[in-house]
Amino acid sequence: MTAPLHAPQRQFAVHDDCLQIGALALPRLAQRVGRTPFYAYERGHIHQRVAALRQALPAGVQLHYAMKANPMPALVHMMAALVDGIDVASGGELKTALDTTLPPARISFAGPGKTDAELACAVAAGVLLNVESEREMERIAIVGERQGLTPRVAVRVNPDFELKHSGMKMGGGAGQFGVDAQLVPALLRRLGQLGLDFLGFHIFCGSQNLAAAAIAEAQARSVQLALALAAQAPAPLRLLNIGGGFGVPYFPGERPLDLGALGESLALQMALLRAASPATRLVLELGRYLVAEAGVYVCRVLERKVSRGRVFLITDGGLHHHLAASGNFGQVIRKNYPVAIGNRLAGGPRETVSVVGPLCTPLDLLADQMEMAKADAGDLVVVFQSGAYGLSASPAAFLGHPAALEVLV
Amino acid sequence: MTAPLHAPQRQFAVHDDCLQIGALALPRLAQRVGRTPFYAYERGHIHQRVAALRQALPAGVQLHYAMKANPMPALVHMMAALVDGIDVASGGELKTALDTTLPPARISFAGPGKTDAELACAVAAGVLLNVESEREMERIAIVGERQGLTPRVAVRVNPDFELKHSGMKMGGGAGQFGVDAQLVPALLRRLGQLGLDFLGFHIFCGSQNLAAAAIAEAQARSVQLALALAAQAPAPLRLLNIGGGFGVPYFPGERPLDLGALGESLALQMALLRAASPATRLVLELGRYLVAEAGVYVCRVLERKVSRGRVFLITDGGLHHHLAASGNFGQVIRKNYPVAIGNRLAGGPRETVSVVGPLCTPLDLLADQMEMAKADAGDLVVVFQSGAYGLSASPAAFLGHPAALEVLV
Repeated sequence: MTAPLHAPQRQFAVHDDCLQIGALALPRLAQRVGRTPFYAYERGHIHQRVAALRQALPAGVQLHYAMKANPMPALVHMMAALVDGIDVASGGELKTALDTTLPPARISFAGPGKTDAELACAVAAGVLLNVESEREMERIAIVGERQGLTPRVAVRVNPDFELKHSGMKMGGGAGQFGVDAQLVPALLRRLGQLGLDFLGFHIFCGSQNLAAAAIAEAQARSVQLALALAAQAPAPLRLLNIGGGFGVPYFPGERPLDLGALGESLALQMALLRAASPATRLVLELGRYLVAEAGVYVCRVLERKVSRGRVFLITDGGLHHHLAASGNFGQVIRKNYPVAIGNRLAGGPRETVSVVGPLCTPLDLLADQMEMAKADAGDLVVVFQSGAYGLSASPAAFLGHPAALEVLV
Repeated sequence: MTAPLHAPQRQFAVHDDCLQIGALALPRLAQRVGRTPFYAYERGHIHQRVAALRQALPAGVQLHYAMKANPMPALVHMMAALVDGIDVASGGELKTALDTTLPPARISFAGPGKTDAELACAVAAGVLLNVESEREMERIAIVGERQGLTPRVAVRVNPDFELKHSGMKMGGGAGQFGVDAQLVPALLRRLGQLGLDFLGFHIFCGSQNLAAAAIAEAQARSVQLALALAAQAPAPLRLLNIGGGFGVPYFPGERPLDLGALGESLALQMALLRAASPATRLVLELGRYLVAEAGVYVCRVLERKVSRGRVFLITDGGLHHHLAASGNFGQVIRKNYPVAIGNRLAGGPRETVSVVGPLCTPLDLLADQMEMAKADAGDLVVVFQSGAYGLSASPAAFLGHPAALEVLV
């Protein structure tokens, strides 16, 4: 029996055994950034990913970017020119999205705890609000009345099915997200009375999924549910956001999603939707899948240390910048992200090492007993699959170390 | 069989069923802060905690504050007047400590990955550097030579024993912290050759421990190890920092540490140390134990929502401010912190609810199916035991929501 391996990391060029990001050799990129640690996101890879999706998915499917995956402003601006819409999860993200060239009508705002201030911004901006509860709908109507505007809304539905094999499930049970499917008809009646501008539904049931069949099944059920609910809506169904959930391989044994299979099943759903409701735009909302594999986290080895026969590479980066790679403050079963020495990928001699950060906690661990090229002070450690839920999902202030930089190259 | 309960939270006064923090009723405190969510740390409780320690511990034991537990500047300034020293873990924390009234000689700096810039600051400031490896010692000597100063150092020892029953173990095996005990004699010889000012040892083997007997055993072994190693030191042992590790009860079934038992066992160690090495200062380095129970996290209910028979209180606070209470991004076994409705503690009717935040993830969960007073929009949720590793250990930028405020009252 052999141990499972990481999916090969072939998304970046390699010259002279050195990783190239955005056509720059890693040590040169580190000099261009000015200091380590940093995150680098490669424009070319994101373009390729969007192109691959357009190729695999049926014509007419619209791609939205879920900014929560990576809110770096430069990246969001680039994305605004590539995709058909942006989805935001807070007033802060809304501001970033409105600063892009994207028309406000292409921006949607979801979140179970929107404040009155956030609702007021969103209505004034003219973005689409995903309604998460009846009470929120009433609050939106009041804001619209005060501003003399008709709020544009979609209803977020908590479906009565789940997305199987998901990293996180967001449907199929009780939850804070959206309106339970069986309560939607009554809510739609009230929506009509309130005179809100009804666009359609948002149905999202899970994330970080690598099983194409499970995603296809959830998509089919989402289309079916939306068409059934649309019969009770105060206006025709113009929009159906079926979420995303497309995963990327992080850990040993995980394999990339079968995009071809997803495209085929989605073509079938698209045909059903077209037949039943020709004017409906079908939206796929993707975050992680668009950016995760385009990003690396880079830190520098400060010292190679041997303790009781084990080798530690102590770096200037760690869990304060990349909590997910460290194992989220002590997950019971910690797994390694793909990690390598970026300036000597194959290297000469190789050895088994643990890569740790500068923090005073044993949880500050970027790689636990992984084999990589033998490295020493000055070498550059690279954590792959780091373009999503990296810096913004990490406790940057922890222990008062310098912040990581971010570059788009 | 009854389910285990949280240790009672009696550290704050209660008037009219409402929590009082720093002599202010919680709703008034919220108005004084100006907005929710916020952390509040009570001065009086920290004073009492330090006094209780001085009372329980043998005379002559010095108390240090480990700033990593809570680096809020106002709190650190208060602490500087209460304790005998401050321990820092980065150049950023060093700056905060140097801005207090504490003399630099009472500040010590530990961390396995100190940069050259950090070493230069520390030597120039005249603080104590805890040496973590032979290579770091050589780098410190170079800095001293360049600056024409004699660096003040202690040797951090990775002991050959562990602290049993610890939340985190930091000794007894291979690790990035300190110098393996068996390598210390050789390092001490080199230290003498380099002409560094040797003060003593730092031996720290674990944290968040609620078993007094386990802590007492580790302390006894630390004193024994230090005395054995001191025989090989280039100068007399003036300082012995035996770390901390004192835990606080977070989860159901946990009980407070037996401070009396710890005081008795430490008196024995103090007597042994005095007999063998009369000029040695014994230092206890505590972070969490000094501040965790003095702090609360407070957020406001935005909406009470019922989904498929379960009640959710959706608040304006969540994992982006208090990651530990949420379960650190999906711990396999999540446990609830003590959580209550702060403005109606006993309340009239009670119900079982889940308290969630505004984030678009099911992991944003502050209380999972806990019984508390029936609450609605506007009520204030309080998370107890939140004075340590709260805000600074949380991903504040996640999803772009407003930052939490911090007040010391």
